[in-house]
Amino acid sequence: MKRWSKRLIPLMALPIFLAAAPAGEGIGIEHFFLVLISMLVFGKIFGEVAERIGQPAVLGELVAGVVLGSSVLGIIPADGSMHEMIKLLAEIGVALLLFEIGLETDLKEMFRVGPSASLVAVVGVAAPFLLGFAYWIAVKPAIGVHAEGISDTMVAIFVGATLTATSVGITARVLTDLKRIHTPEARVVIGAAVVDDVLGLVILAIVSGLAAGTALTIFGIAKTFAVAVGFLVAAVIIGNIIAPKLFGFIDRMRVRGVLLVSAVSFALLIAALAGLAGSALIIGSFAAGLVLSSTNQFDLIVEKVEPVADIFTPIFFVSIGAGVDVSLFIPGSESFNPSVLLVGGILVVIAVIGKVVSGFSVGWGKNKLNHLAIGVGMVPRGEVGLIFAEIGRTRGILSSEVFSAILIMVMMTTFIAPPLLKAIFKRAGEAPEPAPALEPAAAGGMEAANTR
Amino acid sequence: MKRWSKRLIPLMALPIFLAAAPAGEGIGIEHFFLVLISMLVFGKIFGEVAERIGQPAVLGELVAGVVLGSSVLGIIPADGSMHEMIKLLAEIGVALLLFEIGLETDLKEMFRVGPSASLVAVVGVAAPFLLGFAYWIAVKPAIGVHAEGISDTMVAIFVGATLTATSVGITARVLTDLKRIHTPEARVVIGAAVVDDVLGLVILAIVSGLAAGTALTIFGIAKTFAVAVGFLVAAVIIGNIIAPKLFGFIDRMRVRGVLLVSAVSFALLIAALAGLAGSALIIGSFAAGLVLSSTNQFDLIVEKVEPVADIFTPIFFVSIGAGVDVSLFIPGSESFNPSVLLVGGILVVIAVIGKVVSGFSVGWGKNKLNHLAIGVGMVPRGEVGLIFAEIGRTRGILSSEVFSAILIMVMMTTFIAPPLLKAIFKRAGEAPEPAPALEPAAAGGMEAANTR
Repeated sequence: MKRWSKRLIPLMALPIFLAAAPAGEGIGIEHFFLVLISMLVFGKIFGEVAERIGQPAVLGELVAGVVLGSSVLGIIPADGSMHEMIKLLAEIGVALLLFEIGLETDLKEMFRVGPSASLVAVVGVAAPFLLGFAYWIAVKPAIGVHAEGISDTMVAIFVGATLTATSVGITARVLTDLKRIHTPEARVVIGAAVVDDVLGLVILAIVSGLAAGTALTIFGIAKTFAVAVGFLVAAVIIGNIIAPKLFGFIDRMRVRGVLLVSAVSFALLIAALAGLAGSALIIGSFAAGLVLSSTNQFDLIVEKVEPVADIFTPIFFVSIGAGVDVSLFIPGSESFNPSVLLVGGILVVIAVIGKVVSGFSVGWGKNKLNHLAIGVGMVPRGEVGLIFAEIGRTRGILSSEVFSAILIMVMMTTFIAPPLLKAIFKRAGEAPEPAPALEPAAAGGMEAANTR
Repeated sequence: MKRWSKRLIPLMALPIFLAAAPAGEGIGIEHFFLVLISMLVFGKIFGEVAERIGQPAVLGELVAGVVLGSSVLGIIPADGSMHEMIKLLAEIGVALLLFEIGLETDLKEMFRVGPSASLVAVVGVAAPFLLGFAYWIAVKPAIGVHAEGISDTMVAIFVGATLTATSVGITARVLTDLKRIHTPEARVVIGAAVVDDVLGLVILAIVSGLAAGTALTIFGIAKTFAVAVGFLVAAVIIGNIIAPKLFGFIDRMRVRGVLLVSAVSFALLIAALAGLAGSALIIGSFAAGLVLSSTNQFDLIVEKVEPVADIFTPIFFVSIGAGVDVSLFIPGSESFNPSVLLVGGILVVIAVIGKVVSGFSVGWGKNKLNHLAIGVGMVPRGEVGLIFAEIGRTRGILSSEVFSAILIMVMMTTFIAPPLLKAIFKRAGEAPEPAPALEPAAAGGMEAANTR
């Protein structure tokens, strides 16, 4: 262990060299390569350290992002064309991540957990929204000044909305790292997170509409909701008719890499179609994975997609970490503000309670631990929360202080969920005997995950 | 075969939909995904068609690029941020291609062919340069008007220079497609193309210096040359000391995808270092491949890198094709100019003769066919020729007509080399018995490639 960590030190010297790389006009290819390498290498080094100290690797990748981000080493730029480029690669990464998760998801099992997942999602959206809204209206925390013509109620609605999102990516990755992605809890959480994305889009549409001064109609809300749900259902039904024939045909093509390229293209195509239909990209790539999991080429697709996802997915997590402004936390630094920390801390508590409650809304046939695992699995806000906060700031609804408090909430929920999940599953694993399972299928799933 | 091609038609309808995708401000993620998908899917469809009609797949990818390029369907933009983005992905593609080639190259064998490769490269640079320069000075083709203060001699030097480059990427891919990458001819061509890149950089430095009005010193020329050669040698020597230990250590790490990510990062790092040292990126990634081919993790690296290269490499070839302006060839179109075609045709003949001659400069102990295979393998100018032509145009040395004629030369040499190489190797394969080999190792290599 000591010898191992000593050898890491020379590798750590890399970013100092990297930071000195010339930026030039446009994006220099060398500079782009070096930023990419630093994200990949730091992601793996911190991921390895996280695993060695008993945490999931994704936490290491987030920390790697914080270290490489603009508030610490400044290797990953916060804007400009390089930022745009990395954002696009990160989007491929999260699309491939959800594609892989879709591939490994049993559709029939999904339907079985569908009602539970929907209930968890609805409670997990409603509870934090109401708690956050009530807190803001009751306390009216005096931090920062919002733009002219914005009512306190509007700010309260927006704060509540930022508390609703669930970042399926982080939880899914943690569950994969812990080899628990096949457990019934994981299926409920992933399913709920997908439903949550749909609800999140509806909330985003409503809130953005309010911000723009539009009186939203019930019809408009219903339409946004119907598009997202309709797309997922339609993609899976149509995909299940077309995909087996299409991939049977592709399997007979002989040009190098055709199956992999087709699978990745399929995932990105359905993602793009979801986006064009006005829904979230990741809903599309998740649907693509669900569809291809029933093809005969499934095993080969999983095998070939894995290395491609291994390159792209860390870029997503490292770039999330890079969005964190560390100076907010450091007493003495210019941006440090104790009120921001206090309000942020209260929002963290609300965010955690609101989501943990959702875990207790389902699964009373299962043992008590499942509730906590599901609830905590819903906690991380990640990129979705950041998107909400960013919109609020640019529209002048959130002052930079409120934005910072929300940022703390988004960051903290993202950071505390992995170790908490790990601890919860570890406690479950350490129990001398599993609690008697009332649902045999669920217990089977748990055992499969343990012996995997 | 018929049923097969009929099924392709619906897939062909994709770009019509794609072209209608919204462009928006910055790069829309959906639009980016759709352009990427169209490049990957069209690349594979045309690659498959090329293979079915007995041509190498890379020719299909180039044609796919032409079809998707701005002069036909306009799916791949010729400028703007999307163009920048695709260029960067293409750079990763060509870096990974040379990395793979480096991995599959036997360093000892490379040293054995070193003198031959250097001779082929020098003759293959000198012959087309002198022929092109002499043609331009003797004929002074009256097409287009170059900028003020540019002498005819300067134009002749630039035209000659654009004739010197060799695109190792295309030839290497064709040889891989034909399963001839392990033949002695392939090693000479790849080696010569690497030397050619070094020479090309020197010529580029000299010509750019002349264009900028700088009187270049012998010292400057020698320095440019020494940097490129020195980098390759230093990277391989230092790499061979460090890499086995580094990758032995990485092999003991347990986080997912660490070996693949490390190998890809290593390739991109050495490429970036080569670029920063003032040499070509692909020299670096080729060196990285050479270095890792002697590690214990070689087999696993090759297996994992392949799918990643399968995604990135076609982007490189499709984007080369996208640079072609088809309207230059079409009588009746606005840009059509018969003089341009005539001069372009003459340059093609010079370009082919100049490189084929180089094949006859070595290997007189081998059978006659090797000369042709080596010479034709050196013919494609590809991206290197395009870079030269583009610099000449932006500096005002080449009129748009001369630029177009050079573009025809670059395109035609790129397009004719794959079918010619295929035909040459086919003829060799059809010989009733292999010619008695004077060099056992070379014949062994040929047999290994045939039975591969």
